[in-house]
Amino acid sequence: MSEEREIQQVLARYVRAADARNGAAMASLFLPDGKVEIYYNHAGTPEPIGELHGPEAVSAAVTTMMRPHPPRGWSHHTTHDPIIEVDGDDGTIDVQFIVFNVAGAEKPAGGWPEGAQGAQGTILPIETGYYRSVMKKAGGTWWIARQGIYLDLPVPS
Amino acid sequence: MSEEREIQQVLARYVRAADARNGAAMASLFLPDGKVEIYYNHAGTPEPIGELHGPEAVSAAVTTMMRPHPPRGWSHHTTHDPIIEVDGDDGTIDVQFIVFNVAGAEKPAGGWPEGAQGAQGTILPIETGYYRSVMKKAGGTWWIARQGIYLDLPVPS
Amino acid sequence: MSEEREIQQVLARYVRAADARNGAAMASLFLPDGKVEIYYNHAGTPEPIGELHGPEAVSAAVTTMMRPHPPRGWSHHTTHDPIIEVDGDDGTIDVQFIVFNVAGAEKPAGGWPEGAQGAQGTILPIETGYYRSVMKKAGGTWWIARQGIYLDLPVPS
Repeated sequence: MSEEREIQQVLARYVRAADARNGAAMASLFLPDGKVEIYYNHAGTPEPIGELHGPEAVSAAVTTMMRPHPPRGWSHHTTHDPIIEVDGDDGTIDVQFIVFNVAGAEKPAGGWPEGAQGAQGTILPIETGYYRSVMKKAGGTWWIARQGIYLDLPVPS
Repeated sequence: MSEEREIQQVLARYVRAADARNGAAMASLFLPDGKVEIYYNHAGTPEPIGELHGPEAVSAAVTTMMRPHPPRGWSHHTTHDPIIEVDGDDGTIDVQFIVFNVAGAEKPAGGWPEGAQGAQGTILPIETGYYRSVMKKAGGTWWIARQGIYLDLPVPS
Repeated sequence: MSEEREIQQVLARYVRAADARNGAAMASLFLPDGKVEIYYNHAGTPEPIGELHGPEAVSAAVTTMMRPHPPRGWSHHTTHDPIIEVDGDDGTIDVQFIVFNVAGAEKPAGGWPEGAQGAQGTILPIETGYYRSVMKKAGGTWWIARQGIYLDLPVPS
């Protein structure tokens, strides 16, 4: 597998962990001194919002700061159009991201209405921006050294 | 072309066939004993919805079970963040998917309204989930042996 | 880096340039005799809408024809499920695209409302279709020779 594909796959596991609200799986992708830096991108002029230092803080944030899914709820953190640079054991990946919120409808006590067709519920894009990740290869595996999250939309602090 | 890229390309042709409602193109991606298994994912606890066995059943489902596009309508089955494993002639790919429904506006008899700008119509995400595919390489080509479709939203049966 | 990854990366820079409304960055991806052809796809029967010849025309179109982002606004041109063919220094890439419009809410003079959580604003898919690009490798770099844009939705002319 190419270095670029391996790096993409780390981000693929990152978004799976986010959607499963699995802090341990998320933390396992980070170097021991890895960190997350969150910014409000403000149309290209980033303003710092917060930082997380080390896998334990990352894990706690996924488990406690991300809202759990309601019944029949799920999310999809999706990434797009990676720009990847690799130089030996150093790498960077810059992707666009879109987060979709998925809310399944509850089946009515009397069953679905006559003629109801297709998926029942709503899907809403709720967050967008860029992930800019610094990656390091160690022990044959790529790890996240720094995960920069640049949010397009303002977030109440 | 890498094995991983070839496997991704099979899924790229899969979503093209779905959006074109082209049963023959879809069926041509499957092994003779290939199958589709559809589940309601139920937030991570899959419940079987249906199965299709063999390319003919797959083709018929695309042609007859998927609703045809209305005039000026289209769809985009899009896939995201693949996790790919290859072991010789065996492979798996796990992707997120989002389906967008596209409904073009009809040009009014008197022409578009004064000042109308940009694309005229609506685009709606209507379905999300995961595709988990088992692939086999035979005769130098990757084929779908099993297409697992895990839907986030419940579907009336 | 594989030829396919390099070609994907050209499109990744293309969508970054579109979202930054950066005509110079966009033009730098095209061959001197490169062109853009825009079609209304009309459910698979393309009708020509317009053409741009050469990097200067491409740059001018990005800078003057694409509407600038309003305050707190941004966009994401995202591409999906590439089908890539490479033959020596010639290549093609066919992708689905979705454009999302992002409108950040303005922070109220009295601060965000009590209990406001998560990203404040709206994200809307406004355009979809296919990019079908003809690429040429020259001087060790892949360039866009022809960018075909096939829009799903009609556009007032």
